[in-house]
This record gives sequence, structure tokens and C-alpha cells, in this order.
Amino acid sequence: MINKNFKSIFQTTDFSYKAADVVIFGAPFDGTTSFKPGTRFGPNAIRYDSYAIEYYSPYLDRELSEVKIYDSGDIDIPLGNTKKILDLFGKYQRKLLADNKLPVCLGGEHLISLPLIHETFRKYPDLVVIHFDAHTDLRDEFFQEKLSHATVLRRAHDFLGDGRIYQYGIRSGDKSEFKWAESHVKMNKFNCDSLQKDVEEIGNRPVYITIDLDILDPSVFKGTGTPEPGGITFKELLNAIYTLKPLNVVAADMVELAPNYDTSGVSTAVAIKTLRELILTIG
Amino acid sequence: MINKNFKSIFQTTDFSYKAADVVIFGAPFDGTTSFKPGTRFGPNAIRYDSYAIEYYSPYLDRELSEVKIYDSGDIDIPLGNTKKILDLFGKYQRKLLADNKLPVCLGGEHLISLPLIHETFRKYPDLVVIHFDAHTDLRDEFFQEKLSHATVLRRAHDFLGDGRIYQYGIRSGDKSEFKWAESHVKMNKFNCDSLQKDVEEIGNRPVYITIDLDILDPSVFKGTGTPEPGGITFKELLNAIYTLKPLNVVAADMVELAPNYDTSGVSTAVAIKTLRELILTIG
Amino acid sequence: MINKNFKSIFQTTDFSYKAADVVIFGAPFDGTTSFKPGTRFGPNAIRYDSYAIEYYSPYLDRELSEVKIYDSGDIDIPLGNTKKILDLFGKYQRKLLADNKLPVCLGGEHLISLPLIHETFRKYPDLVVIHFDAHTDLRDEFFQEKLSHATVLRRAHDFLGDGRIYQYGIRSGDKSEFKWAESHVKMNKFNCDSLQKDVEEIGNRPVYITIDLDILDPSVFKGTGTPEPGGITFKELLNAIYTLKPLNVVAADMVELAPNYDTSGVSTAVAIKTLRELILTIG
Amino acid sequence: MINKNFKSIFQTTDFSYKAADVVIFGAPFDGTTSFKPGTRFGPNAIRYDSYAIEYYSPYLDRELSEVKIYDSGDIDIPLGNTKKILDLFGKYQRKLLADNKLPVCLGGEHLISLPLIHETFRKYPDLVVIHFDAHTDLRDEFFQEKLSHATVLRRAHDFLGDGRIYQYGIRSGDKSEFKWAESHVKMNKFNCDSLQKDVEEIGNRPVYITIDLDILDPSVFKGTGTPEPGGITFKELLNAIYTLKPLNVVAADMVELAPNYDTSGVSTAVAIKTLRELILTIG
Amino acid sequence: MINKNFKSIFQTTDFSYKAADVVIFGAPFDGTTSFKPGTRFGPNAIRYDSYAIEYYSPYLDRELSEVKIYDSGDIDIPLGNTKKILDLFGKYQRKLLADNKLPVCLGGEHLISLPLIHETFRKYPDLVVIHFDAHTDLRDEFFQEKLSHATVLRRAHDFLGDGRIYQYGIRSGDKSEFKWAESHVKMNKFNCDSLQKDVEEIGNRPVYITIDLDILDPSVFKGTGTPEPGGITFKELLNAIYTLKPLNVVAADMVELAPNYDTSGVSTAVAIKTLRELILTIG
Amino acid sequence: MINKNFKSIFQTTDFSYKAADVVIFGAPFDGTTSFKPGTRFGPNAIRYDSYAIEYYSPYLDRELSEVKIYDSGDIDIPLGNTKKILDLFGKYQRKLLADNKLPVCLGGEHLISLPLIHETFRKYPDLVVIHFDAHTDLRDEFFQEKLSHATVLRRAHDFLGDGRIYQYGIRSGDKSEFKWAESHVKMNKFNCDSLQKDVEEIGNRPVYITIDLDILDPSVFKGTGTPEPGGITFKELLNAIYTLKPLNVVAADMVELAPNYDTSGVSTAVAIKTLRELILTIG
Repeated sequence: MINKNFKSIFQTTDFSYKAADVVIFGAPFDGTTSFKPGTRFGPNAIRYDSYAIEYYSPYLDRELSEVKIYDSGDIDIPLGNTKKILDLFGKYQRKLLADNKLPVCLGGEHLISLPLIHETFRKYPDLVVIHFDAHTDLRDEFFQEKLSHATVLRRAHDFLGDGRIYQYGIRSGDKSEFKWAESHVKMNKFNCDSLQKDVEEIGNRPVYITIDLDILDPSVFKGTGTPEPGGITFKELLNAIYTLKPLNVVAADMVELAPNYDTSGVSTAVAIKTLRELILTIG
Repeated sequence: MINKNFKSIFQTTDFSYKAADVVIFGAPFDGTTSFKPGTRFGPNAIRYDSYAIEYYSPYLDRELSEVKIYDSGDIDIPLGNTKKILDLFGKYQRKLLADNKLPVCLGGEHLISLPLIHETFRKYPDLVVIHFDAHTDLRDEFFQEKLSHATVLRRAHDFLGDGRIYQYGIRSGDKSEFKWAESHVKMNKFNCDSLQKDVEEIGNRPVYITIDLDILDPSVFKGTGTPEPGGITFKELLNAIYTLKPLNVVAADMVELAPNYDTSGVSTAVAIKTLRELILTIG
Repeated sequence: MINKNFKSIFQTTDFSYKAADVVIFGAPFDGTTSFKPGTRFGPNAIRYDSYAIEYYSPYLDRELSEVKIYDSGDIDIPLGNTKKILDLFGKYQRKLLADNKLPVCLGGEHLISLPLIHETFRKYPDLVVIHFDAHTDLRDEFFQEKLSHATVLRRAHDFLGDGRIYQYGIRSGDKSEFKWAESHVKMNKFNCDSLQKDVEEIGNRPVYITIDLDILDPSVFKGTGTPEPGGITFKELLNAIYTLKPLNVVAADMVELAPNYDTSGVSTAVAIKTLRELILTIG
Repeated sequence: MINKNFKSIFQTTDFSYKAADVVIFGAPFDGTTSFKPGTRFGPNAIRYDSYAIEYYSPYLDRELSEVKIYDSGDIDIPLGNTKKILDLFGKYQRKLLADNKLPVCLGGEHLISLPLIHETFRKYPDLVVIHFDAHTDLRDEFFQEKLSHATVLRRAHDFLGDGRIYQYGIRSGDKSEFKWAESHVKMNKFNCDSLQKDVEEIGNRPVYITIDLDILDPSVFKGTGTPEPGGITFKELLNAIYTLKPLNVVAADMVELAPNYDTSGVSTAVAIKTLRELILTIG
Repeated sequence: MINKNFKSIFQTTDFSYKAADVVIFGAPFDGTTSFKPGTRFGPNAIRYDSYAIEYYSPYLDRELSEVKIYDSGDIDIPLGNTKKILDLFGKYQRKLLADNKLPVCLGGEHLISLPLIHETFRKYPDLVVIHFDAHTDLRDEFFQEKLSHATVLRRAHDFLGDGRIYQYGIRSGDKSEFKWAESHVKMNKFNCDSLQKDVEEIGNRPVYITIDLDILDPSVFKGTGTPEPGGITFKELLNAIYTLKPLNVVAADMVELAPNYDTSGVSTAVAIKTLRELILTIG
Repeated sequence: MINKNFKSIFQTTDFSYKAADVVIFGAPFDGTTSFKPGTRFGPNAIRYDSYAIEYYSPYLDRELSEVKIYDSGDIDIPLGNTKKILDLFGKYQRKLLADNKLPVCLGGEHLISLPLIHETFRKYPDLVVIHFDAHTDLRDEFFQEKLSHATVLRRAHDFLGDGRIYQYGIRSGDKSEFKWAESHVKMNKFNCDSLQKDVEEIGNRPVYITIDLDILDPSVFKGTGTPEPGGITFKELLNAIYTLKPLNVVAADMVELAPNYDTSGVSTAVAIKTLRELILTIG
């Protein structure tokens, strides 16, 4: 008769970490956000509103209950201390990988991906990163800082090296980033047209997926700090995700939902469904 | 029983019920809404904002003044008493059908369609229902209740029987609903691709049209209680409506506008234009 | 390192019902709301935002940790079936009273108080009700219904009888309600001036407290379905609560927070602090 | 000329102009608004939301049904032509006064009062104006224009002359306005303290009342184009209105509600209750 | 006359008018807006939010710094005096054309284009107007006025004559406007399909471009007074702009952003990017 | 270092730093905000909306033009690096003090006050701090960090020592803070009652004023990250400011406006008027 509150649809193992294959955790950090902050509220918005969404995907004819998922909640962070915060995220990622879980992190701003990719790279030195985003995130520094949401993939390149980052949907950045990208990463501007071919090329190498939800057009996803018109549709994002099916995905994240900027709740619903389809594809 | 209030562009007969061919009425009920209520404000929002919309459709080259329309206002309801409320809606539908009007009801949540379909079925036993929606609405019960917005088409199936319900745009529901649908209704998932063919199949049988506006993608229609990303575009909905032209439509409804969740007014504008095109097509 | 999500500040007993003195539960029902629905989201909004509020009251120099509180979550309800829903609320109240807990229910609309007062009355036949509200809630029926947020205290009077209901802050109702009140209840219009004297008069009789938060002026509490200008200030409400200190309070509720109508979150913060002060006073 | 639309609680004579003592009409003009426009939506917001407010005032123990009120709707206006618009308002005021009605106009911005005061002055040459406002509105010109919401009382002074305008609640203007006011009008800065004495002084001279709702503190009334913190409370405004009881009020208006800037609806509720109490006091 | 204020990304010449090739100015007028006003805030919203947008266009591989742009701010206007305001806009346009600048004006409502087109026509008598819009704007009068946002292209036709106005994206108007258009202007309903061919036809005649942003679908652009569902996508608008590349553009404007109706800021971001691409194409 | 942008009413010296007595600058940092971030937008919101506010104070009968004020804009900050950011703020404060300006800083979150108070203390070792706030801000650490908006006054105490901090309006904090305060600072809980007496006690010692706007009740000031019901009114804050007149104020700040949480703009108007009255009192 009594409904224990705030169970999300992404918790299918009755609160047992041990039994889980996929472990979700929140990285509620938005400390380097340059325009409108608020992605710290992303993970809990996803949990909170998820009970309005179905477990079942008619696209994939599969239910969340078919995957063993544990949601370990948000990581507590010492506000204002960027380096210490990133270390905490990395430390938890390391634990998950050591325990042979498939980590799925919910941001937070995009910088949270850096320690996660780094830890994943330490376990899988031939790691490939698949990056969905409106922005290049390839600056060498931003507002005089090396660690920023706008530098995150450039920092990842520091240890991954050339040819290991595949980017899709990119439509914003400064000129130098686009030039730099030409010889260091594989960038698919504006859309995901080359994804199918790239997936074949990647083969069975270990893959980290990072989805910056602002790859979507702001018509359907306005709950983010720097909306960029001209993005892909929700259906295009779903199709891109389904294309990832053959890959050997070892970790993933989904970032940049700032739920308060979309009071209609649509952006949160979009994030929840994207997460559902992602887990049903890679889990 | 009828509470007379707003003049809108959907009132072309100078307040004379008798002279009208099409009669609009509001069913402002949202009592079984499971997530965000507020569709009770739908009909009046449509009337209130309609004066910002043109009478003329450049798509159909036809004006509302070419159809005799009477708007009888919203039906007064005893709040909190679901059964009594549904009976009142059914009773008014019966009167309209007896007077040979073409009833066009504005919801309210989707459950309001149940008594309307039922009364229409009583007059036209070979009735076919064309159902535009994001959701299957085919549960047998929902939160332990037989009467719910999530069961409405299942309840209609109780008296209509197999093969009489045609569904379009469906992208959400639980697994059992989709399985059940396979042998009982004709479901076109995700889009309206089979509509043209279905219209030919239906021929001149009497048709009830029920449009749950959440068939639309929330990018253009966020003013609803449970937005489902991945919907059809406004142009696709218009085209679907124009496809209905050859049918023998005997009643229609349009439901699930919850105007307060879209403070920009766009969702209400979408509902008004959909209603205009619907009436210009079937009226 | 990992913060288990969604623990509210109103949960001080490590999730043990047995050890608790005060038991909170949510009654997320808004089915008879006549204007703007949404109080169903009240209890979870209180839990969700509570982590931004301190445990400690500088007004009372007391902390929530000094009271043993268990939050049993929201009661699952069969949407659209008013009678069945009220029965579920009553049934849980009966259990709490049987287990010698102090029940504190979070609405929902005001009608949820009816089964709670009734069950409390069954245990304490000499029960007195202290009612804070903008509205009389004394109609005999409302929109043709006996069970409504607008009739709730009248229904309570049906079994309590004359002189057992004390009302404060009342500033809205129809004429007949105010007339009827003169000979049946003790009404303090507009403010709480007579409360101190009434508390002395009540002495040690068992007391049920029902706080409709719309007693507050909408300047500080706009997150409610029918805001009534001219209400009391937050400080006046706190002072009224402190005045209740000497009473023998056996149950309480706090209703009518509709958080979505105040996107600033202030109304929810007001509800949380009111609840904190209430529990620190009666717990 | 008159565009008939909504039924509200301010319509007690079954749509008969002839039988009415008080005639309400809307002047939906905001063409000279210098900051945030939108008062054109004020009158209809009042009508639309009024059904959530009671007919009965517990403050005055009187009901709207005790006054014969007709609501003639909003006046249709040629958008963009200030002078023509003001003439239309004046023309209708003249008709109402000729028919011995008590006109109560709903703005619109404050400039709409000018033709109304002028016509009232033409019938009652010894007219006194009681002006509630946050702003002096005494500029001689504003942004190079003589006709402006910021000059309206100065323009009224052009024909009324010295000592005929009583101002209350004023807390904003430029220095020269305050200086000019000293020798030409009677200004009560910040509050309404001198009102009681002024009412005695005015005696039975004919009185025009103009209430700019921004006299209220924006805590309770934020739905206006230029909110000015430091205003009076809703209770203080009600008390001011009750103080007007002995006067010979021959016309009134209430202006500057811009409902879209307060999505909670509180400002509109404040306007409705103010109008109710005003009519119950002077009607 | 010119009120200097914000620095934005559209200011690349260090505040020197003389050095500039393109001169931007704001025409913050919304005095004839028939539904929801607020376009007066358009130009400053564009400046204010522009710092969140990149200088570089990956579509055109060109940066704003490659064009010499001066932003002269908004023109101060005498509020409420339509004619005088239009004259001020025209006067500034004349100066810019005399100084051989490329004027790019930011509205404001669409009526502001009238004096600008007129002055441009006076310099270039064989001027052609390319008009992107949801609305025909071809009424002869609107609410009894000749000067209105709804008549602006009709007024331009008064001096331009037949065959000089090319319209794209039109989907709303009254029947008579569409009929009149058939013999007087070249109208491409619903989309921009004929643009490529028209550009070839226009050849090197001088061209004025007027972009009413409501040509866009309200899913991506809801910050406007009269949103019209069924519009083109952002990508379609960009492609249309790129198609203009071969033309001899002598002046341009972009109108009808009303930023307050889209609190997410997406509409403003859309306007900024459209302006960036427009300037990078024609500048 | 300084990013010049908006002209506001707080710029009375024609952009000349040298001629100014009062220098305003923005510290747009919200990196340790624990609940809802966004105070980074505070300074520009104040500048942007200020043109809707009068230069003249009828309370003080004084105009801003009587004080020589220069607004040096916001300080550019390396996002995500708390320590470096605070150093930049301190460095600019040092320069202003060296140039004998009266610095008035606009936050940002409250932590920005720390380097400012520190630099002021270095120049004036007998500095006294007057602190208006809802929160004690006296934690020794917060979420494991020494540098936080919640520790700022405690950090100031580290160098100021006992008896140098006067606090007003405090109504939130944890128990240990209130206990610690008893022997180290002078705290006036809930209101400003002791201010008049304290001003006399302080005499002509140098004074730093820090106004956290959340001292105000959220009814009038909801645009802040952690609204605390039970605050003082706007009039009470003005009166407190006027009481400071006799003091030797050497620097001031005003923090915690997060304008996006109050879409009505009232909070920003409150901040602007508070700043105007503050400068007219101390400038």
C-alpha cells in the first residue's frame, strides 16, 4: 500500500550493487559552465521524472527489466574545488571498472567526462571515444583554464592521441578548433552521417560513448546551458544510438541536461528516453 | 447543464444551435491524469487565444465561415465523480447525434472520449475509430482502475470488438499492450504511413476521429501532461487530417491540451490550427 | 562517498518505522480541485527540496534530529476514484494511530483531511480540530458533490458536531457558509488573533491540526491552486504554530502546496520550513 | 464599437445594459508603455480568472449580486493610433455618463484614464481625482511626447487645475515632478495616511477614482510593466478603498495589470478582488 | 538620436562608425502589434546574449571579424507616436545609405521595415524586396489603420508596384490577401522552394531583404508575438540565406523577435545565429 | 582584466574612472553555490534593467547624478578556478583602495566578499564588517571546503578576530554556527533592531558593508539561490541602510541576486533600488 518514494525506472536490481551489470551514477558538477549553470540538477531530474516514462521500448521491443541496473546516486562533491571533484568522479569510475560493471554516468557539465574517460583509458589503452555534441570541446584552454567543459575532448586527446576521437553533430566552436580537428580527430560536422561506416571501422575495440545532449536541436531540447540551433532531431539521435549496437561499449555518459531551463519538462523526458534507449542498446 | 462563455473563431452561426451543422463542446475533465493535470483548461484556452488565428486556411483554400459551427461551451461537471461526469458527456453527445449535428468535442484528458465513442457506437453500430496518439491507451486497468485515460481505447474495444480501432503515431505503452494490440487493433507505430491505405479500406463506414494531440512531437506541442519525444511534426498531422477527407466522419474529438505547461502559447496555437483544419476537412 | 539520493530532512530514524514517534506520509490527491490542480506533487517537492533547508530552527533552538521521524512515502492511489482513495488514506491513518504514532500527512488537496480526521475522531471521540485556511470549506455540497475540498470541514462537522472546529485566517467563501459558521463552528476571520485564548479554552482535549497553506498571503505562497490575496504573513503563521505548543496534538496535516505554480521554489521552501517548525513544536 | 466576449463574476444583470447601474468596460491599450508592455491583456484576464473568485466579500458582508453590473466588454481599437484610440474611450465614457451609469473602466496602461477623466470633468466641472499609484505620472512630456502613461495626471491637471488631484502611495518619479507637485497637487508619498482626512475635506464633490495597481508592493502584485518595490500591502489598499465609502464617486478605473508577467495568476486574483471590493464600496 | 549601449559580437570595428562597412541598428518599436507585444526588447536581447555565441561559422568557414561591423545601438523613440517613430527610422536609414553603409536593422515589429524599404527605394528605384515571413502582411488596412505590421508589404507595394516583392514561407493571412497577391506579388507559400530560381531571375538588381523570424516553426522560435505552427526549420532558413549569396543586397532587416516569450533563450540564440549567417553571407 | 560593457544608471561620470568617487564592479562568480547557481548574471541584470528605474530617490531627496560614479564592468574570470578568481577580485579591490575610490562590488555569490574584505582590512586594520543576511555564513567548512559562500564570514573572522563582525537578519544556519557566534560575532537574529545602537557603538571606525539580498523575505526577493522565508521587508532594508548614514563606510558589496529565478524582474528591480539607496547614503 505504501510506495517508497523516488525509485527511478533505472533501478532494476532492488538496490543491490553486487547483482548489477550496469551501474548508473550522477556527477552533479557545473563549475566551469561559461553561460547558464544548472546541470548539477540533471541526474536527480532524470530520476524524479522517470516514473512518467515506460520501461518498455517499442523501438527495440525490449524492457529495462531485462537489464540488471543499479543506480548508486549522486557523488557528493566539495563545491568550488574542480580538481578534487574530478578526482572523486575518476575514483568511482575506477572502482566500477574494477568490479566489471558497465558504468553509465549522468552529468553535470561535459568536463565530468574527463576523469571517466581517463580511468577507462587506463583499463583499456586502445580505447576509442564516440562523442555526440554541438560543440567541438577541443580548445586548448578556455578563459585561461586548461580544465573546462570547452576543453574536455582536447584534454582527452592529450592521453588518447590522434585518431581515437570520433565526433558527430558538431556545429559550433572557434575557427582554430575546427582547423586543429582536421589532423587530430575524426569530426562529422552537423550530423551523424558517417557513423555507420565508422562503427565498422572501429570494430571490436573498446569504446567510450559520451553524449552531450545539446547535439539535439533546441526545439526538442532547450534544457541546457548553451542551446545551439541547427541540431539533429530526437529520431536521428535514437537512430545513431541503435547504430552503436555492434560495438564493444565499456563505459558511457550523458551530459548537459540543465532541467530548470525547460519548465515544461520536455528536455528531461528526452534525456530519460535517450538513457533508456542507450541502456537497452549497450546493456 | 451547458455553461455558455467565450466567443471564438469557432462560432460562425451567431449563437444559434439550431442553424449549426457542427457543434463544438468542451469536456474539461482531467480526473484520472496520472502525471501532470491541467487539460481541464484546454477548451477555454482554445477559445480565448483563437482570435489571434485566421479564419482562412491557405492549405485548403477554405474559411471557417463556410461551415455552420456552434460552440455550446463547456459542460459543467461534478468534480471528483468520474462516472457521473462521463455520463454527462455521453448524454450531451447523444442529444447532438439525435439532432443530426456533427459533434466535435474538446478535451480534457483522453478518458472523455469513452462515453462519446460509446454513444456514437449506439447510433452507428458499425462504427470505426481512427485514433491519433503517442500512447496505446490499451491497458486493461491502470493504477487499479478500469476507467482511465490509459485504458480508454481498451474500454472502447470492449463494445467495438476486434479490427475496429485504427491507431497512428503510437510510441509508448507497456509491452503487454503492444502484444495485445497485435491481434485486436490495427496499430501504425511511430507515424501515419498506413493511413492512406486504411482510409480506402474503411470506405464509407461511419468514423469517429479521436486526436490526442500528444501524437505531435513535444518540440511543437509541449502543453500536455505526458510529453513523449519522437512524435510526428505539425505538417505530418495536417497531412494525416487531409487524408481523412473521403471518410464518412460522424463525430470527432481533440484531447490532451494542457495549456499551462506551455506559457509561450504555441501549443494552444497548434491546437487551434489543428481544429480549424479538422473542421474544414470534415465539416 | 556516494550519497544515496532523495533522503529528505524529515527522515531521522534511518528508515525504521518502528523506532519513530512521528510518521510522515503523503496523500497525493487533487481530484476535486476546482481551479488549478497539481497538489499531488506537493509531498515529493517537499522531500526533494528539503536538502536545501537546515535541520536547525533558530526560532525554537531545536533540531529535527531531536525528534524520531519516519517518512513512509506517498500512498499509491487508484486515480479517478475519489471514494476508494479516501478510504486508503483513512486506513493508513488508522494503522498509525493504532501503532501510537503521531501522524503528519502531507497533501494533496484539502479533501484528504476528511478520512484522517474521521479516523482520529474514532480513536479520540472528544477530538477538536484546529483549522488554518483562507477558505471556509464549509459548503454542504460543491458542484453537486458532497465530497470536495470545499466541503471538507462541513463533512467533518457531520460527525464532530458543533463547537469542535476552530478556524483561523478565513477570508473567502460564499455568504451562506459564513452564516452557517456563526452557529456551528468557531471562526476567526482574516487572522489568528483569538488563537491564544482558544488554546487555553481547549486545554488538554485531543487536537487535530490541519494547515491549508493558502492561509498565507500569496506574496509568499503562490504555489497553490486558488491563491487568495489578503492572507497572513509567514511570521504570523510561525507564531500561530508556536502558540499551539501547550496542546495535546494527536495528528496533523499540511495541505494545498501545488509546487508547479511557483517555479521560483519559494512556496516549497515555505512549506518545508512550516513543516519543520510544526514538527519541532508538536513532535 | 464594443466587442462582446466573456461572462465574468462582474456581470450580474444577464447581459442587459439598460438595467445596469454600474457599467464595466475594457480599454486594452498599452501603446505608450515605456518598459514592458502587455496591459492590453488585463481586462480579459480579469474576466477569465474571475470565476475562481467568490461573489461574496466577508470584509463588507456584501455580494456582487446586490449591485446591478453590466460588462460591455473591451473597446475595439485601431492599433498604433494613440489619439484615435483615446477618443474612442472618451466617446464611450460620454455615453455612459449620459445614460447615468457609473463607469468602471479596466486598463490598459494609465494613459487610458485621460479621456475618461476629461469626459467626467465635462459633466462634473468641480471634479476631484483620487489617484493611487507608485508613480507621480506628472511629467510634462515623456520621450518627447505629451500623451504618455507618465504624463497622464499632468495632462489631467491641464484642465482640472490646482488642488483637484489627490495622490497616494507615490514613490517614484523624477525630481522635477516631485517639486512641481508641491504647488499643484496634493501628494501623499509612500502610503495613504492622509486619505481619511482628505475624504472629509472633499466632502460631497464629484470624485473620479483611478487605481494604478502598481501602488501595491510587487511582492503581491508583480504582473505590471514597471514594478516598484516599497509599495503598500493588499490589506492597506483594501482599507484605503473602504475609506472612500462616504464619497460621491461618479466614475472609476483600475489600470496597469499586465497579467503575462505573473504566470502564477496571483496578480490577476489581486486585481479581481480589488475590483470586487471597489464595486461593493462605490456601487 | 542614437542611444549607445551594449557591445556584442556584432561590433568588430572598435566603435568606429567611419571604418564600418555594415552598420547595425535597433528599431525597438512594437506599437501596432495586435496580439502579444514585446519586440521592442529584441535588439538588446540579441546584443546581450550574443557573447554566448561563436564568431565563427562552420557552415561558411568565415568569421565575423572578417567583416567590418559597427553597431550604432537602438534609436530612441517617442513612445506612442507611430508616424514620428517611423520617420526617425527612415531618417537614419537615409544617412546610412548616403554614407555608403550596408544597413542591417533589428526590429521591433514588421512595420519598422516600411520607412527603411522606402528610403532604400528612393536611392535604388529598381529595388526588389525579398520577404521571409509566416504572414502575407498584405492587408490594405488592419483594425482601421493603414500603418500596421499587417499592412507593411502592401504599403511597400504602394510605391514599389507589381512584381517587385518576392515572398517565402507564407502560411497565414485572410483570403483576400492571398487573392490579391496572385496578381501583384510573387508568393511562395509554405516554403522557399522557388528561391533558387527567383535569385537567378532577379540577377543584379538591388535587393532589400526582410526576415520576419516567425517564418520559422514555433518549435524552434517561439519568442514572437503571433507564433504560426507549420513553419520552416532553422536549417531551411540557413539554406535560404546561403542561396542569397549571388544577389546585390543593399539593405536588410530582421524583425519580430520578442525575447520574453521564450524564457529558455533559444529564440534569441536562433536570431543571433541567423544574423551571423546573414552578415557573413551579404557583408 | 576588466570587461567593459553596459551603460546603466550607475554610470554618472561619462566613462571616466579618474573622475569617479564611487567605483562599481561586478564579481560574476557562483562556483561554490550549493543549491541553485546563477548569481553570475546578477551584475549585468542590474545594469540592463536599470534604465527602467529613476535616478531620483524620493526617500532621500537626492539623485544619482549628485554622486560621481564609474562602473568598470565585470571582472573576467577563469571559470572553475576558485582561488585564482578570488585573487583577481582582491587585486582589483586593492587598486581601487589605492586610488582612493569607494568600491561597491556586485556579486556573484557571497564568497566574493572574502578577498574584498581582506584587502580592505589590509588598508584599514581596525575594519568593522556590517553583514546583512539570512544565513550565518559562519561554518568552518562546507562540503569539505574552507572556501565557500557558507564559510565566508568565518574566513573573514580568521583575520578580523572577535567582535568585528555585526550580523543582521540572520535566520538560518546550523546549531554549531549559532553557538559559535555567541562568543565571536555580534548577531542580531531575524531583524535589524539593534542596528541603530550598534552604529553609535561603531562610531567612526572604518566600515565594510556586505548586503546579501536574501536577508529580504522571498515574497519580494525570490531571485536568489536559497530563498529563506521569514525575512525582512524592503522598507525595513531601506531603513537599515539609512541608519548607516553616520558611518565611515570605506567599501561595500551587494550579493546573491540570481535574476533568472525571478522572471518577473521584481528581484532585479529590488536590487537596483537597494543599490541606488545605498550609494545615495554612503556615496
